[in-house]
Amino acid sequence: MANEKITPKILPGFMELLPEDQIEFNSLVDKIRKAYENFGYVPLDTPIIELSEIILAKGAGDNERQVYRFNKGGSDLTLRFDLTVPLARYVSQYFNEIRFPFRRYQIGKVYRGEKPQKGRFREFYQCDIDIIGDGDLDLINDAEIPSVIYSTFSELGLGNFIIKINNRKLLTGLISSLGITNLSKEVLNIIDKKEKIGSDAMEDNLLKLGLSKDKVEEIINFTEIEGKSDEVISKLKKLKIQDKEYRQGVEDIETVSNYISKFGVPEDKWCIDLSIARGLDYYTGTVYETILTEFPTIGSVCSGGRYDNLAEYYTDRKLPGVGVSIGLTRLFYQLKEASLIMKEKTGPAEILVLPLTDDMTIPLKVASYLRNRQIPTQI
Amino acid sequence: MANEKITPKILPGFMELLPEDQIEFNSLVDKIRKAYENFGYVPLDTPIIELSEIILAKGAGDNERQVYRFNKGGSDLTLRFDLTVPLARYVSQYFNEIRFPFRRYQIGKVYRGEKPQKGRFREFYQCDIDIIGDGDLDLINDAEIPSVIYSTFSELGLGNFIIKINNRKLLTGLISSLGITNLSKEVLNIIDKKEKIGSDAMEDNLLKLGLSKDKVEEIINFTEIEGKSDEVISKLKKLKIQDKEYRQGVEDIETVSNYISKFGVPEDKWCIDLSIARGLDYYTGTVYETILTEFPTIGSVCSGGRYDNLAEYYTDRKLPGVGVSIGLTRLFYQLKEASLIMKEKTGPAEILVLPLTDDMTIPLKVASYLRNRQIPTQI
Repeated sequence: MANEKITPKILPGFMELLPEDQIEFNSLVDKIRKAYENFGYVPLDTPIIELSEIILAKGAGDNERQVYRFNKGGSDLTLRFDLTVPLARYVSQYFNEIRFPFRRYQIGKVYRGEKPQKGRFREFYQCDIDIIGDGDLDLINDAEIPSVIYSTFSELGLGNFIIKINNRKLLTGLISSLGITNLSKEVLNIIDKKEKIGSDAMEDNLLKLGLSKDKVEEIINFTEIEGKSDEVISKLKKLKIQDKEYRQGVEDIETVSNYISKFGVPEDKWCIDLSIARGLDYYTGTVYETILTEFPTIGSVCSGGRYDNLAEYYTDRKLPGVGVSIGLTRLFYQLKEASLIMKEKTGPAEILVLPLTDDMTIPLKVASYLRNRQIPTQI
Repeated sequence: MANEKITPKILPGFMELLPEDQIEFNSLVDKIRKAYENFGYVPLDTPIIELSEIILAKGAGDNERQVYRFNKGGSDLTLRFDLTVPLARYVSQYFNEIRFPFRRYQIGKVYRGEKPQKGRFREFYQCDIDIIGDGDLDLINDAEIPSVIYSTFSELGLGNFIIKINNRKLLTGLISSLGITNLSKEVLNIIDKKEKIGSDAMEDNLLKLGLSKDKVEEIINFTEIEGKSDEVISKLKKLKIQDKEYRQGVEDIETVSNYISKFGVPEDKWCIDLSIARGLDYYTGTVYETILTEFPTIGSVCSGGRYDNLAEYYTDRKLPGVGVSIGLTRLFYQLKEASLIMKEKTGPAEILVLPLTDDMTIPLKVASYLRNRQIPTQI
């Protein structure tokens, strides 16, 4: 018997649930998984530990300082910080053994050693889908993604939601036509924050960059184009922006919008939002965000986009892709905070057999009978 | 575009599957999970990274040199090497918030930096169930475990199987009655290998320990008692072993055997095997092994036992428990090697909609229709 007890605790930034919450969490995972599989996405389960040269090939951006990296048996190892880098490595590695377009889902834990703060996790689940093409990938796939999001969030039952789409070519085309490509990153960054900070602060920030009033106004006006998707597209067409990338963006978002309707996503569940930029330099075409209408302060709960080249660090092949991710740990935490999730039941057993005498013969028979009929039973 | 490509590969000892194999693997996980939940076990999902003082409180035995241990942000961290240590920590930590007897299952990855060799994994899934009591735990729980194993392996469809049970008190009582308690570990170790090495080698090894011929013969004769459980128990009762622990062991295994029958486990699916010792000093009562009858060389595919005190390093409370674990990664690998698992299907989609013209209107409608009816569909 040990005398000095060690205080049982876990590390800050790691989520651990009591059984009743775990059951709710697993129920969300099951619904997401079922929705993903319903669209023909195949499951992957890649190692949590990989070689640092793989995980950090591209550089982990902001995550580079945060990764869990260590040596073991002479190898430089890193815990994955997302599921996209392992996907890139996987697709390059098994290129000849998988079929394209490759639709995969992965639901798994990722690791970022962030400073612990409320609602930020160091170990958290991501639930990703991606469609990867070999050489090219038709725009119909950009429309399938909102269709999967629609199906998934309808199943999840987290209230009303709206899927917002945009195309990065529109924004980069606009920036290029204004002759401010040198400030592209900064401008996109400010536009991306529009929802959060509002138009006035956005205007201030753009002016601080040294842009002329005219150009700032043009950007603001652009991001405020609203309406039904066909109205927005019609307005985009009328804008006198003579940039080639911009024109391609208009054409692409029109094609994708038409497909989205054909996929059966109801009109009130998606819209074009021209202020969505999604990060700085990763996405190249369609981008997505998903907002829970009753909980807008949570921000986007399912985001992603189209990228030109998934695996350039591992292969010469051009592998364009499109995908989204649900950060489920953070979402669950925030929904719990908002007390949205209703407790359906407190245990997986539906029947509790309670013996009233010492003779267990009958209770055990009853329990066996129920279990054989797939009725969860506890004695 | 990066010019120097990094070879896409994973570390040796890590299992990664192609999609069709992953689907089979997940199907096994689903069946195990469903069987566990069917008996009222609640799910847990503990962090993969914990403080080293927690994970290594007891010492990790053979695993101590093998653990993945590193520093991050001033903390000494270790990846879990099993699911039992995290359970002990969890039960101590949330003692006041959980109900006893606490039935939990956990299916998750664990990490052991072993020398890579065929069939040995550094990252692998364990699928554990345990029942933890507060202060004491009735022997009926020792009988529930084989009942869960029976249900699980019936569902898994891996052919015929047999659950072998023993009670450690029988062996330690026998050893004590022979006056060779000083050699207890060595003797148990040799008995445990009987199945593998046979009676003759067992006899040689025991003689090499310096035991008299009489005592070696008594041990051999003891481990060779066979038959139906009531016959074995009747023989155990007749043996002239006057040790108190031995007598308790006979009483316990009789009680557990009676309960197992009442749980409805068919007679041909379980037996008493007096040579099962399960490791050296962890278990204190009932022990379990499960053999796939058609693949005996795989060894036990589901093992465990009763332990007196789960969490002595974290709490003063006495928390006895009983449980078993399936090492699913190794099992899956060995079944694949043995080509047992039949491929049920090659993708989660059941219907592939194949458009023959450029107009996607009809194909998308058909796919939406099918998906809305929960029929996995891919375009």
